[in-house]
Amino acid sequence: MHSYRQLFDFTQDVFLHIGCPPNDAKLAAEVLLEADLRGVDSHGVARLSGYVRLWEAGRINPKPNMRIVHETPSTATVDGDGGLGLVIAPKAMDIAIDKAAKVGTGWVSVKNSNHFGIAGYHAMEALSSDMIGIAMTNASPLVAPTFSTDRMLGTNPIAVAIPTKNQPPFVADFATASAANGKLEILQRKEKKAPVGWIQTKEGDRSTNANELKDGGALLPLGSDKVHGSHKGYALASIVDIFSAVLSGANYGPWVPPFVSFLPVAENLVGEGIGHFLGAMRVDAFRPADEFKAHMDNWIETFRKAKVKKGQKAVLIPGDPEREMTEKRLKKGIPLLPPVARDLEELGKRFGIKL
Amino acid sequence: MHSYRQLFDFTQDVFLHIGCPPNDAKLAAEVLLEADLRGVDSHGVARLSGYVRLWEAGRINPKPNMRIVHETPSTATVDGDGGLGLVIAPKAMDIAIDKAAKVGTGWVSVKNSNHFGIAGYHAMEALSSDMIGIAMTNASPLVAPTFSTDRMLGTNPIAVAIPTKNQPPFVADFATASAANGKLEILQRKEKKAPVGWIQTKEGDRSTNANELKDGGALLPLGSDKVHGSHKGYALASIVDIFSAVLSGANYGPWVPPFVSFLPVAENLVGEGIGHFLGAMRVDAFRPADEFKAHMDNWIETFRKAKVKKGQKAVLIPGDPEREMTEKRLKKGIPLLPPVARDLEELGKRFGIKL
Repeated sequence: MHSYRQLFDFTQDVFLHIGCPPNDAKLAAEVLLEADLRGVDSHGVARLSGYVRLWEAGRINPKPNMRIVHETPSTATVDGDGGLGLVIAPKAMDIAIDKAAKVGTGWVSVKNSNHFGIAGYHAMEALSSDMIGIAMTNASPLVAPTFSTDRMLGTNPIAVAIPTKNQPPFVADFATASAANGKLEILQRKEKKAPVGWIQTKEGDRSTNANELKDGGALLPLGSDKVHGSHKGYALASIVDIFSAVLSGANYGPWVPPFVSFLPVAENLVGEGIGHFLGAMRVDAFRPADEFKAHMDNWIETFRKAKVKKGQKAVLIPGDPEREMTEKRLKKGIPLLPPVARDLEELGKRFGIKL
Repeated sequence: MHSYRQLFDFTQDVFLHIGCPPNDAKLAAEVLLEADLRGVDSHGVARLSGYVRLWEAGRINPKPNMRIVHETPSTATVDGDGGLGLVIAPKAMDIAIDKAAKVGTGWVSVKNSNHFGIAGYHAMEALSSDMIGIAMTNASPLVAPTFSTDRMLGTNPIAVAIPTKNQPPFVADFATASAANGKLEILQRKEKKAPVGWIQTKEGDRSTNANELKDGGALLPLGSDKVHGSHKGYALASIVDIFSAVLSGANYGPWVPPFVSFLPVAENLVGEGIGHFLGAMRVDAFRPADEFKAHMDNWIETFRKAKVKKGQKAVLIPGDPEREMTEKRLKKGIPLLPPVARDLEELGKRFGIKL
């Protein structure tokens, strides 16, 4: 078990070591650690050495010259110059928030970036300005469209954060696949089977093998199969891909560069790096903020009071489990799985940084 | 089998008869018929007598004084004055398109409206201006949140239309439930069972009874159960509800007025009518339109060429089936189920309108 502070300092030092300017290293550590706090263990310090390997492979620029390459009063397209998504995305979100402050909403499409941690972090940035925050990103292709056996789309997450008055904010943050790859990794470590409806074999048959992706299998879109609406999950993942990459000029579909440095980047790229899409909407661009926030409280209270199914404890509001986990981990610390702890230890040894 | 023209003229005459101004009657007929053309039979002329009954119950204002009650350069909140959603939504979309023309994007939240037909129609309105169109609406509560037995949300659809160069446009239009109510109605008429994962009993147990909603059961969110991501479908339906109604001041959650006039409107309403959310984004607010559209063509061609699973014919692009259906029905006519044909016949007799 490590305290948030210990992991934060270590992570910040690693990003400093690879050449990030001090403010960027701090920001990147904050974004990455938010995943560990919220219980999305697959996206936190477990990925730190992955970012380092991408940097070693020359695929991350620690001192990017991020710039706006196209804009209107409510939009911007940002070139991330190959920087860490952990740094580029929050700065792009700042641009969206600035634009929203001026004209009601702001929308930023980002190219030439890298993985940006959890989408929820970026969406939540808008809350303190009484804005609704929206964040999405494309990612390495692992998901097959309905009726296909090819891996064409990432688990392309969508996050939406909505401000409230006295209730905690509404924070939805979810992959558009029926289950994200992180859930399969947990099953792999425990040597357990996956439920039917998460993955298919390379021929497109149903599978419960948690290692199926290594044999050419694919994740399934939210909905799992056509009868249960997988064409809707496929459409959602496609919309995320198009908003993040076709709007910005990043790579899309099968061309999205893989996160792991040992997998080759596709040939004949159609764009630059990976893409994100970030939005901010001032709630008082629609109605007085107090009115909106009072009704959001009522919305949340009403749903929380909905009748609970037998065998379940409570009807949850999006963001509830992650908030509880954050409170717990800030108090009691963040547990690391043995391979993750070993990974960080090695990294620390190589770089001369103490955890 | 009836021609599009026959059904259009009849529908237009019905809307004229209930007091809509000529231009509104024409627009309402066009929006309603778009559902029949695209094969979404549950949302087209099958609902015409439902709109009439709502008018008879005093719940539709045929001559609304629609107005903007709040705005910024990129947003507006519209009061639909109890008008037909079929008329209010396209006019609200026009406002979004106008704002996008000026500042890059336009976003309109609508209160005090009624059902607006298929979401896809409104999203597609943006295409001819080289804009991405977005449309969503809340609807009568039929869907239970994950872990709940209460019907708290509508099938709250999302539509996104994206312009292209030579390929047909990308048009996604889907309910955020695992299956929309229209699909259950088809099974009811055929006296068939529903697949597991569409509905639950009033106790929250799995059910295959297509009539389960009449016994207090509920539709399930996209994902069907927690293991397969129903919390994601629940979050999506919630986002649609909040953008459509909490932003605008319409009724949300369990307070959304039912479409059928024989069901009572909830007491202590929290807003006015039902709500929609409409958006338009100029693609050239992000990059030159030609560049964007060429890459959209490449995106579509790439996905169309993805390897097809054994037993399936093709990998589809969102909008493909509806476009093929439209071509077919414009040529060969629109088939009506016997109860729908009888319904229109009776309506025609009462109003002295010939079909």
